[in-house]
Amino acid sequence: MAKPRHNSLIIVISIIIVIFISSSFSLASQPFKFRRAPRFPVKFSHQARPHLQQQYRYDTRYFWQRLDHFSFADHPRFLQRYLINTEHWVGPNRPGPIFLYCGNEGDIDWFATNTGFVWELAPSFGAMVVFPEHRYYGESMPYGSQEEAYKNATTLSYLTAEQALADFAVLITDLKRNLTAEACPVVLFGGSYGGMLAAWMRLKYPHIAIGALASSAPILQFEDLVPPETFYNIVSNDFKRESTSCFNTIKESWGELISVGQKENGLIELTKTFRLCRDLMKTEDLADWLNSAYSYLAMVDYPYPSEFMMPLPGYPIREVCKQIDSGPESTSILDRIFQGVSVYYNYTGEFDCFQLDDDPHGLDGWNWQACTEIVMPMSSDQDASMFPTNNYNYSAFQEECWQDFKVIPRPRWITTQFGGHGKCDVDLDPRDIKSVLKFFGSNIIFSNGLLDPWSGSSVLQNISETIVALVTKEGAHHIDLRPSTRDDPDWLKEQRATEIKLIEGWLNSYYREKKSTFNI
Amino acid sequence: MAKPRHNSLIIVISIIIVIFISSSFSLASQPFKFRRAPRFPVKFSHQARPHLQQQYRYDTRYFWQRLDHFSFADHPRFLQRYLINTEHWVGPNRPGPIFLYCGNEGDIDWFATNTGFVWELAPSFGAMVVFPEHRYYGESMPYGSQEEAYKNATTLSYLTAEQALADFAVLITDLKRNLTAEACPVVLFGGSYGGMLAAWMRLKYPHIAIGALASSAPILQFEDLVPPETFYNIVSNDFKRESTSCFNTIKESWGELISVGQKENGLIELTKTFRLCRDLMKTEDLADWLNSAYSYLAMVDYPYPSEFMMPLPGYPIREVCKQIDSGPESTSILDRIFQGVSVYYNYTGEFDCFQLDDDPHGLDGWNWQACTEIVMPMSSDQDASMFPTNNYNYSAFQEECWQDFKVIPRPRWITTQFGGHGKCDVDLDPRDIKSVLKFFGSNIIFSNGLLDPWSGSSVLQNISETIVALVTKEGAHHIDLRPSTRDDPDWLKEQRATEIKLIEGWLNSYYREKKSTFNI
Repeated sequence: MAKPRHNSLIIVISIIIVIFISSSFSLASQPFKFRRAPRFPVKFSHQARPHLQQQYRYDTRYFWQRLDHFSFADHPRFLQRYLINTEHWVGPNRPGPIFLYCGNEGDIDWFATNTGFVWELAPSFGAMVVFPEHRYYGESMPYGSQEEAYKNATTLSYLTAEQALADFAVLITDLKRNLTAEACPVVLFGGSYGGMLAAWMRLKYPHIAIGALASSAPILQFEDLVPPETFYNIVSNDFKRESTSCFNTIKESWGELISVGQKENGLIELTKTFRLCRDLMKTEDLADWLNSAYSYLAMVDYPYPSEFMMPLPGYPIREVCKQIDSGPESTSILDRIFQGVSVYYNYTGEFDCFQLDDDPHGLDGWNWQACTEIVMPMSSDQDASMFPTNNYNYSAFQEECWQDFKVIPRPRWITTQFGGHGKCDVDLDPRDIKSVLKFFGSNIIFSNGLLDPWSGSSVLQNISETIVALVTKEGAHHIDLRPSTRDDPDWLKEQRATEIKLIEGWLNSYYREKKSTFNI
Repeated sequence: MAKPRHNSLIIVISIIIVIFISSSFSLASQPFKFRRAPRFPVKFSHQARPHLQQQYRYDTRYFWQRLDHFSFADHPRFLQRYLINTEHWVGPNRPGPIFLYCGNEGDIDWFATNTGFVWELAPSFGAMVVFPEHRYYGESMPYGSQEEAYKNATTLSYLTAEQALADFAVLITDLKRNLTAEACPVVLFGGSYGGMLAAWMRLKYPHIAIGALASSAPILQFEDLVPPETFYNIVSNDFKRESTSCFNTIKESWGELISVGQKENGLIELTKTFRLCRDLMKTEDLADWLNSAYSYLAMVDYPYPSEFMMPLPGYPIREVCKQIDSGPESTSILDRIFQGVSVYYNYTGEFDCFQLDDDPHGLDGWNWQACTEIVMPMSSDQDASMFPTNNYNYSAFQEECWQDFKVIPRPRWITTQFGGHGKCDVDLDPRDIKSVLKFFGSNIIFSNGLLDPWSGSSVLQNISETIVALVTKEGAHHIDLRPSTRDDPDWLKEQRATEIKLIEGWLNSYYREKKSTFNI
């Protein structure tokens, strides 16, 4: 554990249990590899900051779910947790809408806390709010406990997106039946992986929900649907747009890191420079730690101070680059880097030393999902990227998944399930996911902020009249779903207003079709 | 076994391994129950009549499939059989179409033999033909053998429609990749349960196939989407339209059956009247045998002689009723009934005695599917039906499934997966399967003949411009898919011509979208 100056703060640095997907980064001139690729921001600790907890009112309930919806094998059921609030709901007769957040890879209460948009919207829509937790996360553990659920590949094997979608479908169907609310329209919300689930759910279960707001949902980050360099290029551009010298310093730092690490006592020197709590064992551990900081900074590059993952200032990359670029000219590259990432890892200044995550292959749920069906190829480009050059190496990836979980990934399964086989060079090939959306989907908003590195593998252009892309130049990872603040810029207010208008439109057209007189 | 006059004929009567879904038929005045409900016509014997075998040319191949597509549990893979013919295929560059028949609950070669339409169509379309077998049927047995696959509820648990659809999706995706045929449009065909699979596949995997001909696909035979009396009312009407006295004789016969059966030596009397090979043990066995005959007769009430399940004359119900109605006035009801069903069970006159199926709960694959997700409620109406009055009793059904398989059905799963929750009284409720088809589907033909008792739970009206219902008044169970004959009536030729035109339309619009110059 880190040693916080203030004992009252327990977590924080331990959050950096990071990243994986194990793109093997390798380059002749820079013979080390990152052992982790980016993942979505998720608070891993079960403890949230006290003042953020239960910011919104809800009941916590539990629903017995089947472990395998797609077979009749006699598995033990498990309790899925869900949060529910009906205080603003206008009831089954109107019929009042149901806002359903598609829980993603973490504690559902943390997502509830960070998805203020849904809570703020509910009263004016007279909506019920439901936040079901994703199986294998938080308290929704098969086999009775996390320990049992995460025991091995057999117990983990039902941790898939299709099963999670079926959980949502079964839960909401049952909930509606119990409330005689069958006619109540469901609107899906989701951010990040949860946004992917919301979009996929609208495609696969159109009868369950009338529309979906899929915020920062990189549904194209599979196979070769987008160039694998997309993610790191956007992170790099986020730094470059603040300062070219900052970008260059970071780009140079990797070589410097290696050359120091290879010196006699080099690891000790790096331990000191980066104020690590424990002796550095491998330069890669430090590189991974830095990579994480840059990648997350790009995701949470919000225009106002936030505490989504870490306490950070507004536009944190600007602050990081300010630190990297400042100081006397004689300041070493690595000292500059340390000053920079300290903005991310220690903005409050509460830490004396830093704890790296040196178990990148920890058996967490997302690692499992990344090693099975959510296989997202990532490379790093020699020119446009500030990261070490890297070509995605599927064999190495597969090998590591076998080492970690004794499982073989199915990199083509998601595109077989949801579409995506079309060649990238054909506009709207009937086989690709965009065509599926165009010809078979409706009422989905893909919202993205271009600072978010995941935006490059989401949907950035309108696909049809009802499959709409909302893009903000200055937005980061699902900023629209976050609670509103006094500092919200106008473009964010406008984006949310558009989303509200679109959702109103879905509901009104549902009510028209139902010939209901209910009005929002 | 039956004792055939001609030793060369092995099967035939044993085919009547019938029917289940165990609607408990009961009526105060007629205190016996049918232990079987109707099922689709499928040749159960692995041996087909020699002259029907390999009528069409194809290669038989095998593909390693996953047992569970929706989990990562480490199950042994199994070999899925598929039949393939590429001799007329114009190849990947044109790009030539692929006609894919969605194999249903039986040997795929029997379906291939009985689906002449696809084979006859392929040359003019320059199409490849592929007939994948449904898992757990024919040779496509998990765990290496039928004995192992059907051992118990655990080994059977992966016999579901969703897994079968995923099999088709994975197989065709792999096949196309291996042939560099990714751009080749796939057209789905299917009859009966295979037609349900074709329609569902088009809904759930629109990127895999550009359209589907779903012939006689009762996708509405779930929960309360259609009145449960629908099936037996249509069977009954098929008889009534030929002869009211025939209908009345059958309607009266059930009471007569019971009253004879209850007499001293009554079972012996029934054994003699119906020329049974073995002593009748229960009146129900005989009632089931008669029920089967009537139900199948309605399905295969084709306008020309056929041998789909049994060798039969054209319009066989007319012939059955002729036998029931003829003979001197003094002829007893049960003698009339025997003469009638002999048309079905013994049209060639080759049998001296008849073998009932007295193991209605035999562990066959369809019984499993009917006891798990394909739960089709069936009742028999007091007035409109010629069968004993019966109200569908789900509890009794569930109890029998538990007895037979140690499995609990999920009667609501299919509607959760594919839609159907809308109330019947609301036209195009956004939650019902018809709305799903209208708003999210396209390019599906639902073809039905109104003599077919399954037609009542299929789609009989156009739902949109591209979800088309083709209905023939005189058609029976997926007659359009059968090989063409010299005796085909004009309405059948017209129906097929319309289907061809619609399929051409799908292909042409695909090619237009692809900006390809390929023309059929």
